[in-house]
Amino acid sequence: MYTYSHMDIGIIGATGLVGKEILRLLEKRSFPCKTVRLFGSEKSVGKKVSFKEKEWLIEALKEKSFLSCDLLFFAAGADISKKYLPWIDLEKTIVIDSSSAFRMDKEVPLIIPEINASLLKNKKLISSPNCVASIIAMAIYPLFHEFGIKRIIATAFQAASGGGKKWMQKLIDDTHLALQNKSNEESHFYGFNLFSHTSEYLKNGYVEEEKKVMEETKKILQASHLKISITSIRVPIQRAHSLSLNIECEKKPDLNQIYALLENAGGIKVFEDKQKNLFASPFNASHQDEVYVGRLRIDQDHPHSFEMWVVADQLLKGAALNSVQIAETLYNGNYNEILEKT
Amino acid sequence: MYTYSHMDIGIIGATGLVGKEILRLLEKRSFPCKTVRLFGSEKSVGKKVSFKEKEWLIEALKEKSFLSCDLLFFAAGADISKKYLPWIDLEKTIVIDSSSAFRMDKEVPLIIPEINASLLKNKKLISSPNCVASIIAMAIYPLFHEFGIKRIIATAFQAASGGGKKWMQKLIDDTHLALQNKSNEESHFYGFNLFSHTSEYLKNGYVEEEKKVMEETKKILQASHLKISITSIRVPIQRAHSLSLNIECEKKPDLNQIYALLENAGGIKVFEDKQKNLFASPFNASHQDEVYVGRLRIDQDHPHSFEMWVVADQLLKGAALNSVQIAETLYNGNYNEILEKT
Repeated sequence: MYTYSHMDIGIIGATGLVGKEILRLLEKRSFPCKTVRLFGSEKSVGKKVSFKEKEWLIEALKEKSFLSCDLLFFAAGADISKKYLPWIDLEKTIVIDSSSAFRMDKEVPLIIPEINASLLKNKKLISSPNCVASIIAMAIYPLFHEFGIKRIIATAFQAASGGGKKWMQKLIDDTHLALQNKSNEESHFYGFNLFSHTSEYLKNGYVEEEKKVMEETKKILQASHLKISITSIRVPIQRAHSLSLNIECEKKPDLNQIYALLENAGGIKVFEDKQKNLFASPFNASHQDEVYVGRLRIDQDHPHSFEMWVVADQLLKGAALNSVQIAETLYNGNYNEILEKT
Repeated sequence: MYTYSHMDIGIIGATGLVGKEILRLLEKRSFPCKTVRLFGSEKSVGKKVSFKEKEWLIEALKEKSFLSCDLLFFAAGADISKKYLPWIDLEKTIVIDSSSAFRMDKEVPLIIPEINASLLKNKKLISSPNCVASIIAMAIYPLFHEFGIKRIIATAFQAASGGGKKWMQKLIDDTHLALQNKSNEESHFYGFNLFSHTSEYLKNGYVEEEKKVMEETKKILQASHLKISITSIRVPIQRAHSLSLNIECEKKPDLNQIYALLENAGGIKVFEDKQKNLFASPFNASHQDEVYVGRLRIDQDHPHSFEMWVVADQLLKGAALNSVQIAETLYNGNYNEILEKT
């Protein structure tokens, strides 16, 4: 069990969308720490950020700058994580990395505390999964073994914020153009438009983002036998990813049992009002900690499959919240228990 | 073979989104007609509409008002179709109905000319399918028998215009609110937001729209054995529906063969630039006649399945264009041949 009551914490990428949320959550959830060091890109250096009623300066990222930290959150992309990790002494500093840099490394656990907290034991470098993989894994973990889930066919409606601030601004700029009927011929025009996720297109016809989701979902659930395919589409939404899932099981799925399992699972909120024909939207799930699920039904033509609608704020459970929950789990030494919903 | 060189044509719902497109297409495609009679709701009556260099008055819909028409397009919703059909003498007047009123009636053919034109023979009341069913059927018809397609899992990204002008306006109004951070708590807020299709929620967990797509796709393809499930989501897009499809086949799918079949099929456009990571968007497909397909790939975990991305202007091939093509097919007496792309 680690003791962190006097911890010095560092956040790399502290002014990014995920870094800001990590800082907000550390304060909101009263994570015990003595100091916080905030590292940002050159243009942010010298700016002040408020945390626990003090002002903290954004520091430049240098190779030895975080030697004093007990716990480091990396939230600045895979290149930064790969570049700076060799400078960290993992005997003295725990690293929680929300980038893709080490997620598929066999030595690095890929953690969602509700699902696989026990894998944290004795680990000093921990990866937090891809946002969509996190959301899928969260939505199905209470059902996975009970029904013998064996195949998932998913479509993801991914929000602008998944691509960072520049995509959020592009959505606003392009929407203004579209409202003035000035839509241009640009390849990824974003005003009232959607398009295939723009991560690298791979030889097998999937894009890099989809590959991550498929690989990481299997790793989180420790289920190499799981069959999964996903289509990732960028939609004109600012925040919160949505997913339609078709899920095939060994055991015939029973909706009453599924609802009961989901309602009792940590981190999940069953959100629907069938009478009013209302199901979760990104508007509902934005800035919320839980993964919203609902609109469950048996596949009418395939009784061993069921379908599910899932929406979650991918900056939270898909990134910042999950990273902070990993830290909380380490702090509590709670490797073997499912973290209770806080 | 019908001869229509002196036809009197009527359009019911002539000022709606689909009715306007029918009128535009009749002129653009030089459909032979002598007169056109345009019927609209009370608030449109007396307005003038231009067609073939003349002005035509919008008339009120009365029970005997269209007795003189040789060919009637119904484009005003199922209730209007059901109410007025009994007043039409089908010995004298051919009816092409784009509403859902009679689509599942065993006596009424559900026609997409590229797919099942032969069923038109001796029929005087013809239904044009649901927009999403049309788009799915179009995207797969060249492959259906070749690969023994047996199951489809679909997710639809449905544009505002599928719900008519009021939804298009709501999208604009709600987007203005969202841009001013005035998003309200209304149940189907549409500014940078998406939600489950708002058609009636049924006991089996599907909504009415999804039921139509599943039933009609089977009827169009004359494939009661086909297994299909769809999730329909309303996205903040003005025009053109998008679909992600996972398609399971008896025969192992071969991508080269699939591309070749799609490239040679009428009404379909393979639209993609893999090098540039560009695939069809609603922006590309809006106001285009063809169903845009691409991003084909074998399901990496299920080699008997492949995936496909499909985008089409649902007001055109999904409604108005298909209705006009049905009329053209009748006019040409071309029951037994696949209509060539025009």
